[in-house]
Amino acid sequence: VDLERMAAVQARLDRQTKPRGSLGRLEEFARRFVAITGRETIRRKEIYTFAGDHGVAAEGVSAFPREVTPQMVYNFLAGGAGVNALARHAGAEVRVVDMGVDHDFGGLPGLIDRKIACGTANFRSGPAMSRAQALTALEAGITLAEAAVDAGIDLLGTGDMGIANTTPSAAIAAVFSGLPVAQVTHRGTGIDDKALAHKIAVIEEALRINQPNPQDPVDVLAKVGGFEIGGIAGLVLGCAARSVPVVVDGFISTAGALIACELHPQVREYIFAAHRSVEVGHAALLERIGQQPILDLHMRLGEGTGAALAMSLIEAALRGLREIATFDQAGVSRGSDQ
Amino acid sequence: VDLERMAAVQARLDRQTKPRGSLGRLEEFARRFVAITGRETIRRKEIYTFAGDHGVAAEGVSAFPREVTPQMVYNFLAGGAGVNALARHAGAEVRVVDMGVDHDFGGLPGLIDRKIACGTANFRSGPAMSRAQALTALEAGITLAEAAVDAGIDLLGTGDMGIANTTPSAAIAAVFSGLPVAQVTHRGTGIDDKALAHKIAVIEEALRINQPNPQDPVDVLAKVGGFEIGGIAGLVLGCAARSVPVVVDGFISTAGALIACELHPQVREYIFAAHRSVEVGHAALLERIGQQPILDLHMRLGEGTGAALAMSLIEAALRGLREIATFDQAGVSRGSDQ
Repeated sequence: VDLERMAAVQARLDRQTKPRGSLGRLEEFARRFVAITGRETIRRKEIYTFAGDHGVAAEGVSAFPREVTPQMVYNFLAGGAGVNALARHAGAEVRVVDMGVDHDFGGLPGLIDRKIACGTANFRSGPAMSRAQALTALEAGITLAEAAVDAGIDLLGTGDMGIANTTPSAAIAAVFSGLPVAQVTHRGTGIDDKALAHKIAVIEEALRINQPNPQDPVDVLAKVGGFEIGGIAGLVLGCAARSVPVVVDGFISTAGALIACELHPQVREYIFAAHRSVEVGHAALLERIGQQPILDLHMRLGEGTGAALAMSLIEAALRGLREIATFDQAGVSRGSDQ
Repeated sequence: VDLERMAAVQARLDRQTKPRGSLGRLEEFARRFVAITGRETIRRKEIYTFAGDHGVAAEGVSAFPREVTPQMVYNFLAGGAGVNALARHAGAEVRVVDMGVDHDFGGLPGLIDRKIACGTANFRSGPAMSRAQALTALEAGITLAEAAVDAGIDLLGTGDMGIANTTPSAAIAAVFSGLPVAQVTHRGTGIDDKALAHKIAVIEEALRINQPNPQDPVDVLAKVGGFEIGGIAGLVLGCAARSVPVVVDGFISTAGALIACELHPQVREYIFAAHRSVEVGHAALLERIGQQPILDLHMRLGEGTGAALAMSLIEAALRGLREIATFDQAGVSRGSDQ
């Protein structure tokens, strides 16, 4: 990130016809986008919704049955899911990636096939995946980001689909934050108190059995992560490597983004945190990434729905940068703070 | 507001392919918009930016000179201000209303002329305006709302321009909340500590001399309000009377909206609070109106900039309502919460 460029943008914002700093975080968004990319416009935006299944779903940690993961993949491709609607609003494309759904899609048009396996193993009794599989998941995300940047995408977003995937995300939050599992584990799609207590116990057991090493983020991804979480981590890494900002959706996406940040701390400078999820563990993830969420609308859908909304606000910020007249241009008198 | 309609919308949202309630406040926005209007689409959106000057500016309560009010009116009409840029982003029109700017615009094309006087009187030593002028200001806003609704506008937004107008807004906040002036008074466009202390003293003196009666909202508007604040209050009243939702911008707009709500408590059901302003008195106004702000981006520009951004989120919510498939349509299995 180019600090000189950032200062130059702020200097321009300060010459615009408004009290200094009065557009608040919109000014931050504009400053950061230009500092990262050198551009002031967004040509094309894409949201990558990574899908994967989870062995731990067998423990009854979700309110939804496992077959919903492939069913929602069909829904994404038909344009009928939440992320499709909100991406259309934001003018973003949705790209759907099969990282490891337990279903044979048979070469479904529009689906990006990066399937590693038909779901992870149940991490309650051993690692979710091998280290090699974790690296393959990261690589898939990295190459997708690179291809997107080569195709002229200026802003990427992350999203997820995978029944039970708040469970690995809470495990990742516990490992890196050092907080008790109960403090970072929540209701996901809507489980009751009893199921929540069970979910916490399952994660506690998984951490005891697998002993993921927080100094080794690939180890954490392999032992208590998920294929779609690895894909998200890779996409975030690829964006940072190619100097393109990435809008990270909610709880699951932030778990993926944190793995990327733990691998390369500079990655956090390329992240826009879309929103604050209802999931209680999200705050611990965001704090470690060091980014404030843009929105707080009590959402907990995932898929990239928050990313779509936040992309639109980043675009609004750039429009402000490009289109607000300066004091000189508009013949407006400056204030005592100018 | 039609409660049956609201329940019907929520029932539809609950059949959509997502965990129940998982779009958080977007579901609230959709529910409320449909309950108010009976419509699920927004055909046209308009932001009314009301401008007026303030006698109290002579006390040195602002960081900007008084001539900035008319200069910014020219800037609005040229499309170069913050609200213009953000309204373009949101697909909304900006309408600029001269409620009482201390400048002769000479029939400027595009400017809506509702000028009551060339600025209010300095309320440090007497009422800002007469009761008749306050009623004229309200009436101007009401008739503008009615004309907009007749022209097919489905969503209106408020905005303000008036050097020194955080001073009357803080006075209004103090009168209705009963809080000490110092707790609801802030830096406006960017005054320093000394000027802030002076601003507080001026408002305290104004309240002592004028004794505005909180049981009589027109009295409050007349004694310590402003012409543009009256216009905003009228617009909000007109929207509620015609069953059209109104997105209320920041601190000044919320002061206007509160006068409308104190006149008719039911008005609050028609208000969407756009954002939480940096101004410390805003929270007291929002609390009395009983609406949670949609955004919190540390903005403090006014003009309708926050309203523009919030309008776009309401539109996103309606798109979700219209376009997300149901479980039956998409062949997705329900969860245990459905």
